Formats: sequence, C-alpha cells, structure tokens
Amino acid sequence: MEKKIAILGSTGSIGRQTLDVIKTLGDNYRVVALTAGSNCHLMADQVKVFKPELAVLNDARSAEKLKQAVRGSGCTVVSGSSGNLQAATWPDADLVVMAQVGFSGFEPLVAALEKGKIVALANKEALVIGGSILKREGLLDQGRILPVDSEHSAIWQCIGNASKEELARIYLTASGGPFYGWKKAELKKVTPDQALKHPNWDMGSKITIDSATMMNKGLEVIEAKWLFDLELDQIEVIVHPQSIIHSMVEYIDGSLIAQLGAPDMRLPIQYALTYPERLESQVERCNLFEKQLDFYPPDPDNFPCLALAYRAAKADGTMPAVLNGANEVAVARFLKEELSFIEIPGVIEQVMDNHVKIDKPGIKEIIDADNWSRRRAAEIIDSYRKG
Amino acid sequence: MEKKIAILGSTGSIGRQTLDVIKTLGDNYRVVALTAGSNCHLMADQVKVFKPELAVLNDARSAEKLKQAVRGSGCTVVSGSSGNLQAATWPDADLVVMAQVGFSGFEPLVAALEKGKIVALANKEALVIGGSILKREGLLDQGRILPVDSEHSAIWQCIGNASKEELARIYLTASGGPFYGWKKAELKKVTPDQALKHPNWDMGSKITIDSATMMNKGLEVIEAKWLFDLELDQIEVIVHPQSIIHSMVEYIDGSLIAQLGAPDMRLPIQYALTYPERLESQVERCNLFEKQLDFYPPDPDNFPCLALAYRAAKADGTMPAVLNGANEVAVARFLKEELSFIEIPGVIEQVMDNHVKIDKPGIKEIIDADNWSRRRAAEIIDSYRKG
Repeated sequence: MEKKIAILGSTGSIGRQTLDVIKTLGDNYRVVALTAGSNCHLMADQVKVFKPELAVLNDARSAEKLKQAVRGSGCTVVSGSSGNLQAATWPDADLVVMAQVGFSGFEPLVAALEKGKIVALANKEALVIGGSILKREGLLDQGRILPVDSEHSAIWQCIGNASKEELARIYLTASGGPFYGWKKAELKKVTPDQALKHPNWDMGSKITIDSATMMNKGLEVIEAKWLFDLELDQIEVIVHPQSIIHSMVEYIDGSLIAQLGAPDMRLPIQYALTYPERLESQVERCNLFEKQLDFYPPDPDNFPCLALAYRAAKADGTMPAVLNGANEVAVARFLKEELSFIEIPGVIEQVMDNHVKIDKPGIKEIIDADNWSRRRAAEIIDSYRKG
Repeated sequence: MEKKIAILGSTGSIGRQTLDVIKTLGDNYRVVALTAGSNCHLMADQVKVFKPELAVLNDARSAEKLKQAVRGSGCTVVSGSSGNLQAATWPDADLVVMAQVGFSGFEPLVAALEKGKIVALANKEALVIGGSILKREGLLDQGRILPVDSEHSAIWQCIGNASKEELARIYLTASGGPFYGWKKAELKKVTPDQALKHPNWDMGSKITIDSATMMNKGLEVIEAKWLFDLELDQIEVIVHPQSIIHSMVEYIDGSLIAQLGAPDMRLPIQYALTYPERLESQVERCNLFEKQLDFYPPDPDNFPCLALAYRAAKADGTMPAVLNGANEVAVARFLKEELSFIEIPGVIEQVMDNHVKIDKPGIKEIIDADNWSRRRAAEIIDSYRKG
C-alpha cells in the first residue's frame, strides 16, 4: 500500500535526511507536500525530484521565485503560515513529518492531529513548550505522534506493545558532550569552537551546544514525559559516551530493553516512516565486536541545565517555554562570544526565578512567556557584560 | 485468571527457582503437578507447600516413600516415566515447565505439545538433540514453546511482535567463561576447580564446564536455531564478559534491540510464567551507572567447541545427539581428572568424525546415536590414558 507523506521543514537537516530515506524506500512512499522557510533553490530541486502536489515557502518573495522555477510541474506553490497549515492537513497525506525548528511548528502540529493525521515529530519545541496544551486537548492519547529523535525512537522501539503498567522507568542516554568530566575551572575557558565539536553526532550548532550543556537531554526529558505519559521520577538520564545505546526501558520485573545502533538519524527517521513495519535500510550496521560501552551518572554540579529542565517540567504551565526561550538566547550569545559557557545555566535560572508562571496557558500565553523570557535573558546577559 | 502449572524436574535448580518465583506471584499461579527423580524429602516438602494434584518420582522406591510422607494430602503419587507423561499432559495444567535434565525430557515435551499445552522449556537436550524431530512433526510452528534459558528469553523479549522477515540476525552473548583470553599452553593446566569458578552465574558443574569450553554457547546456538526458526548464519556469538546484556536481535533496518538484567534465572523464569504480561519481581535491579560493558569475538583457536556445535547443527540428523553425548562423557571425565581441559574438544571432534550420520532420525535412532557416542567417547579417552 502506498504511503503519502508531507514534510514540513524539508530543507533542514532532518527534512533532507527524510527525503534521502524516502528515495531508498521505493515506489510505495510518495511525497505529496513540502514546506520550508526561504530556501528557494533547494526547494525547487526537491520539487523536481519528488514531485509533490504542494510546495510551501514561508517567505512570500521566495515563494514567488519558486513558482517561476517549478512552472509546468503541476505543483501548487503557496506562501506563509496558512501554507504550513495546508501542508499539515493536506487531504492526501497519510503521514506528516514535522521537522521545522521552533514553536511556529506547534499550530501545524495541532491542526494535523485534529485532522487525524499520523505525525512523525522531530520538532522539539512543539512538545517541550506545547506539551501541556496537547495533553489538555487530548491530542497525546491517540498514539498518533511517532517520535523521530533517536532517544525517543529508541524508547518507542523498546516499549513495543507493552502496557504502561508494565513500565517501571526509562533511561535516556546522553553522550555527555565534549566536556563530561570537566570541572568549573576548565569549563570557564570553553570556546564556541570547542563546544561545537560533538564526539558522536553531526548536528546543527544550537543542538550541539545544548548537548555540551546537557540542556538537550533536559529538553528530551520533557519530550519523553509527554510522549510516553510518564511521571518525571520515571525518567532517568544516564551518561553513555559512546552513543551506541540510544535509550532503554526498565520493566517492573527488572528486565531492561535497550535499542542500539550507529549514530545515524536515518535509522529513527526510517522507522517512523515505515512503522509498523521495518524495511531494509542503507544505514551502517552497528558492530559491537571490540567495543566498550560505559555508563556514568550525570554531573549536576558542573552541568546544571539538566536539573533546570526537570524543574521547569515539574512547574509546567509557561515555565518550559521560559526555559527554552532563555536557553536559546543564552546559546546564541555564547556562540557570539558574548557569554561564557559556564554562565549559560545561570542566565536561564535567573530568568526562571523571575518568571511569574501561568498554569494551563493557551498558545498566546505561551508565546508571550517565550517573548518575555528572551527579553529578560538578553537583559541579564547585557547586565553581565556591563558589570 | 488463574494459571495452573506443572513442573517437571521440580527438585533441580531451575525447578526450585520456579517454585520460588511462583511463591512471590500470589494466588493466580497454582502448582498442579510436580515431578522429580528420586529426591523424596524435597518433593515431600514441595507437596506440602504447593499442594499439587499430582507428584511423580521417577524412582519407584522413592515414590513409595513419598506416598507415606504425603498421605492424607490429597496428592496422587505416581512413579516412572509414565508418571512424567501424565504430568506433562495433566488436564488441569495451562503451562508445563520442563526443567528436567537430559534427553528423557523429550517424550514428555512431545506429549505436552501434542496436547496443545504451552511449555516453558529449560531442558536443553530436548531441542539440541530432538529439534529436528519437533520441526518435522510441526511442533515448533505454533509458538507454544516459551524459552527459559536467559539468552533465549532475551531474544524472545527482543523480538516481541516483530515478524521473521524483519529479523536480520541474533547475537547470543557469552561470558567467555573464566578462561577467555587464555592460550593453549595455559589451558593445558586448567584444573576442574578453576573451571568450576564461573565469573557471573552460579550453575551446576556440567553447565559451568560447558561455559568454560564455550560448548554451552554452541548448544544454545542449536537451541536458538529451532526456537526462532533461523539459519545458522543468522546466529552470531559475541563474548561479553559482564553478562549484563543477555542477548540481542538485529533487524533488517540496522536497529539492534538488547535485553539486559541482573544475572538471575528468576527473571527469565518469571517472564515465561507470566507471559504475555510482566509482573513485579523480587529480582535485583540492574544498575548500569559506573558499569562498563565489553564485547569481543569468540576465540575459535583456543575454544573449538563452539565451531563443533555449528558443524553438528549444520550436519543435523543424529549429529547433534553425538555432539551432546560425547561432550557429556568428556566433561564428566574432565571433572574426574581423567581428561585434560584442552582435550575435551578433540574427543568430541573424533567421535563426530567417526559417526555415520542418519538423516531424519526417529527417537530410537537418536537414542542409539547418543549411546554409541558415549561409548565411543569413553573408548577414545581410555586410549588417551593408555597412550
């Protein structure tokens, strides 16, 4: 049976890898809609190769150029956020891959779920910031969100058909980033170049810095809470420098089930695309012979971001949006060398301390909290620089 | 719903641990039949505690004593192999745990499967020696055999509901025993006392020696072939000295699923008892923090028994019976210090070389091959001692 796929964010890293995987899967997988921001050239190439029915560029001028470029292809070109909603609810699509970055992916996600679509979700913010809204609206209960993140895909693969009652806890594995084992004195001198060298994964700069601070794992804890309907004390983080075990589930009988593989995002992407089946893949096989796998506890003294994420998740309401917004600003300023590595968690903590939390927020309150958090983080960082 | 359980071999290590587990599982698990060899005292205790409807002792005199000991309990006491068949097909039993040692467990297994019973199988020989008969009779196709061996339980847990087509291969983990890394010159001097010290598992002496020679893993390869309907080239052995990963499955997409746990047989026993559910257990939790897991290839030069098992499995027919019989004799003579550790594989290989294989054997031909193999192994060992 043919599977028809819409991809939101098709020119980003996950979007491009999704198209790579689809190319290898053969004729049963067809792309029906693509969206991106403003990368007209790449989108035009994707339209020519994958022949979607709909192509969306958020930027209106880029969309005009795209129209010219794909004239005669039969592909409808649309611009703006209404275009994203159209793609997310495209009648033909069986599966919507959400690979956009940022909270602007939230409304298309809600729209897709409300239309009964199956969503392969790679957009972190939608769950981290919007998870409590999705929960309240009953949009998490129907098993329609398939995780794409490698850790969450691992948990999903390890759970299989087990019931929630059989699950004791999950272990999210963390590489620990390039600085695990370092102390504050050494961390003070970390440069962006050092922090951008991830030991195992080749990713964008924001997520690579998040890996180095452990904030990435904190955001994943929040994602996991919503995806698998867990209490926070059922979610443990374990440092595993080799990134071969992608995560684990502990059952109530004491049995642990783990998923392992090469660190290649095409594996979890393909699993979400082909689920409930598995198909052959081009991904390198994971050879364990002569390998060593190590496991350590997280280091909360030197890497406080993980605990901040647990704190935000526990507070819920607008707090996860505040955590995320402040972190984005702090990371951007660190990359500009306007904030030291070791100051990142302090900024986030101060913003969280300053925040007057709103319980059960709507989308507007979340967006307001996000904006407030970014402004407040910027103020704090500026005050550090003056001081 | 109540589950009624018959246990064949209830006074052995697995049998006793099965009863321990049942004690913790509460009223929904009821013992209806028990069998053993001649341990009248322990059987009488078990009858008093678990109140089965039937108790069988193979030895007629011990059965008479048992009758006296449990008089008035309402438990029927029977002796001999017909008693074992009765227990295996006890009308009340939903699940038959087969924890006997040796090929005498084969006929009760066939009888239980023919009656449509679910069998939790801990009897290695039944599959190693009798697998091809079970296959020919169509008794393996119905998913009624639940593995109890920790490695096979791990594979079973990792397969879940996946289809055979999705499975690329399995990795059976082996501790490597106490001598992994040793060379022939060192292995020459191994004493029974040294070989009986297994690094992780506390088991009987025969299986502990088999672990040291890698024959145990070889027998498990043959078991896995029949249990999971695999080709031999889909079964790999990987040395993992810590025995924390109990085995792994590789899927066609490159994803590996592994089962981990404390080295405690009560875990796989309980899983077979409670399947398809998981229940809380008393088993120690597996804590990975600060742990290190290592993986190495097997060492065929210094531990040739594994390759002999693959060879016997490939030859099929009566050859696995010959492998098993010769190995039992060689191990027994090693324990009596009448054969050196390093001579064990040579004896088995010579017996296999001398064997005229019968394809598609019946039970009688298998028993004949087993007897021949034991005699031949004894002759060879005697000739070494004279020579």
